[in-house]
Amino acid sequence: MNIVFSTKPSEKHQTYLTEKFSKPDFYFYEKMDMAQAALPDAEVLVTYGGDLTPELIRKSKKLKWIMLLSAGMDDMPLNEIEEAGILMTNVRGIHKTPMSEYAISMLLQVYRQAKAMMKNQENHVWNKKLHMQEISGSTMVVVGAGAIGQEVARLAKAFGMKTIGVSRSGRNVAYFDQNEKVENLKDVLPQADFIVSVLPSTNETRYLYTMEHFKLMPDHAVFLNMGRGDVVSTDVLLEAIRNQEIAHAVLDVFETEPLPADSPLWDEENITVTPHISGLSPLYMSRGLEIFSQNLEAYLSAKIEDMQNRINVSQGY
Amino acid sequence: MNIVFSTKPSEKHQTYLTEKFSKPDFYFYEKMDMAQAALPDAEVLVTYGGDLTPELIRKSKKLKWIMLLSAGMDDMPLNEIEEAGILMTNVRGIHKTPMSEYAISMLLQVYRQAKAMMKNQENHVWNKKLHMQEISGSTMVVVGAGAIGQEVARLAKAFGMKTIGVSRSGRNVAYFDQNEKVENLKDVLPQADFIVSVLPSTNETRYLYTMEHFKLMPDHAVFLNMGRGDVVSTDVLLEAIRNQEIAHAVLDVFETEPLPADSPLWDEENITVTPHISGLSPLYMSRGLEIFSQNLEAYLSAKIEDMQNRINVSQGY
Repeated sequence: MNIVFSTKPSEKHQTYLTEKFSKPDFYFYEKMDMAQAALPDAEVLVTYGGDLTPELIRKSKKLKWIMLLSAGMDDMPLNEIEEAGILMTNVRGIHKTPMSEYAISMLLQVYRQAKAMMKNQENHVWNKKLHMQEISGSTMVVVGAGAIGQEVARLAKAFGMKTIGVSRSGRNVAYFDQNEKVENLKDVLPQADFIVSVLPSTNETRYLYTMEHFKLMPDHAVFLNMGRGDVVSTDVLLEAIRNQEIAHAVLDVFETEPLPADSPLWDEENITVTPHISGLSPLYMSRGLEIFSQNLEAYLSAKIEDMQNRINVSQGY
Repeated sequence: MNIVFSTKPSEKHQTYLTEKFSKPDFYFYEKMDMAQAALPDAEVLVTYGGDLTPELIRKSKKLKWIMLLSAGMDDMPLNEIEEAGILMTNVRGIHKTPMSEYAISMLLQVYRQAKAMMKNQENHVWNKKLHMQEISGSTMVVVGAGAIGQEVARLAKAFGMKTIGVSRSGRNVAYFDQNEKVENLKDVLPQADFIVSVLPSTNETRYLYTMEHFKLMPDHAVFLNMGRGDVVSTDVLLEAIRNQEIAHAVLDVFETEPLPADSPLWDEENITVTPHISGLSPLYMSRGLEIFSQNLEAYLSAKIEDMQNRINVSQGY
C-alpha cells in the first residue's frame, strides 16, 4: 500500500511516520510535479489540496483516500473525487489556536493604536494622548460558529465580551451568549463592536456581505475577515471604509490572493492587510500529521467510521 | 466641608458627584497651580498625586484625606503626610483591565510580527514567510502577583499558558500554577518564555533585575515591563538585548519619563517603547470616581474602616 505526500514534512516527521507505521510504503515529494508519477499506484494521497486537478484525480486509479492538510475546500475537483468514491478527510480544528490568537491580536492592535505607537517610537516621540480603548466589555459577532469561531468566542469571553454566534443552523454553541441563524445576521449587526468573519467559501456565502450590512454596523465597528475573501467584494469594503460606515477593516483573505500590488486596499489608513497568515503556526505540521496518523490507524484497521474530519464530498464541507 | 480636585473631571462626572453628595462643597480645578489657593480650607484632596509637594501638605492645615486617582506611590511626600496624620487612599485595581490587555496585546504583537507586517503593507508586499508564533502553550512568569499580575495571569491561562507568580510572600494566588517568593526569582527564570514585570518602585524593587537575571532567561524570552522603570537600569536592558540574552523587551516604563529623545532605547530593533500608557482607558475616570464615591460615603458616615485601598503611609503601599 502506497502513501504519497505532495508536500515534504521534516526529517523528524518522516521518521515518526515510518517508524510508527511499518506496513505502508511512504513516498515523500516536495511538490505535486514530483509526486505525479507516483499517483497511479497511490492508495492514499496527503496534500494541502491546492495542487489537485480533475485530471490528477482521473489518473489516480487506485486512490481511495485523500488526506488534506488544510481546511478550505474551494477549488477542489469535488465532482471527480465524488465520482471515484474517494474518501476525503481534512485537518479541520488545527487552525483554531493560531486563528483565534490572530483575531484577538489584531483587534487589540487596532484598539491600542499599535501603528501610531510604532511610528512614534521611530520618531522618538513620547505621546500619551493616543486614544487607548479596551476590548473588554465590548460585543463581538462571530459569523461562522464552527471550531474556529467558537475558539475566538472562548477568548472573547475571557476578555469579558458579549459574544453572538451566527451560523447556518443557529444552534447553541458553547462560549456564545446568543446564537442566530445566518438569515438573522442583519438583526444583530447594530450591536456589534467587532464582526469576526470565519465563513468558508461556498455558494451560500459568496458575496454574503453587502453595503447594507456595513451600514447596519455601528460607525465605530471593526470588521475582521479571516475566513475567505469572496464573502465580500473589494468594492463594497472600500466604500464602507471610505464612507466611514465602519471604523476599521482587518483583512487576512481577499477575492484575489496574493493581493495584487496595485490593489487600493493596501493604502487605506483604516484597512489592515495581512497575507493570509492567520492560520499559520510552527505547530501546524505536527498537529496535521497527528490527525493523519490517527486516521491512518483507523484506516488500516478498516474502521472508517473512526476517522476524524470526514468530508461530505457532495456538499463540499 | 470642602473637597478640592486638582484635576477636572468631565461635566458629566462633576454633576454625578454634586448630585449624589449634597453636603460637601466641591471645587474642581484643572491643575494644582489653580487648586493651591483652595488647599488651606480643604478637608479632602482628590489628585493624581504627581503634583504633591512637602510644602503643599504643610500648607493644607485642614486636610484629613487624600484620594489618589493613581496607584504608584513614588515621589509622594510620605513623611509630611504621615506626620500630619492624613488618611490616604488610591485607585488600586482599576488599572488591571487596560494593563492586562496591554500585556497580551504586546506579546501577541511581538510573536505575530506586527511591525514587519505593517512595513509589508506599506510596501504592498505579500510575504507569507514571516515566522508566526503562538503564545498559547508558553510559560509566563509574572513578577508582582497583585491585582494586575493576577489579571494578566487569568488571561494567560485562557491562552493555555503555564503561569508562575513571583511576589514578596510567595503565597498562592488564583490563576497561577505556581507561586514563588521574590528571592527565588532566579530559579524560575530559565522556564520563562515571557517575563511580565508589574513591580512598583520601592526600596526593595529598585534595580532588582541584574545582568544575571537576563542571562538566566532563555534566549527567545520576551521581557515586558509595565510596573516601574527603575526596577532595571537602561544599561542592563541594552546589554541584555544587544548580547541577545533575550529576544525582545517591551517597555512602557523607564528610569526617566518621558523617555529622553536621545535615549538609545528608541532605536533598538528588539525593543518596543510605549509612553507609559498601559494603564490608560476611556473608563479610567469613571472607575476612579466610583471608588472615590464609595469611599466618600464611608468617610461621611465616619466608617473609615469601610474605605477601600487605604495606604499604609509609613510603608508606602
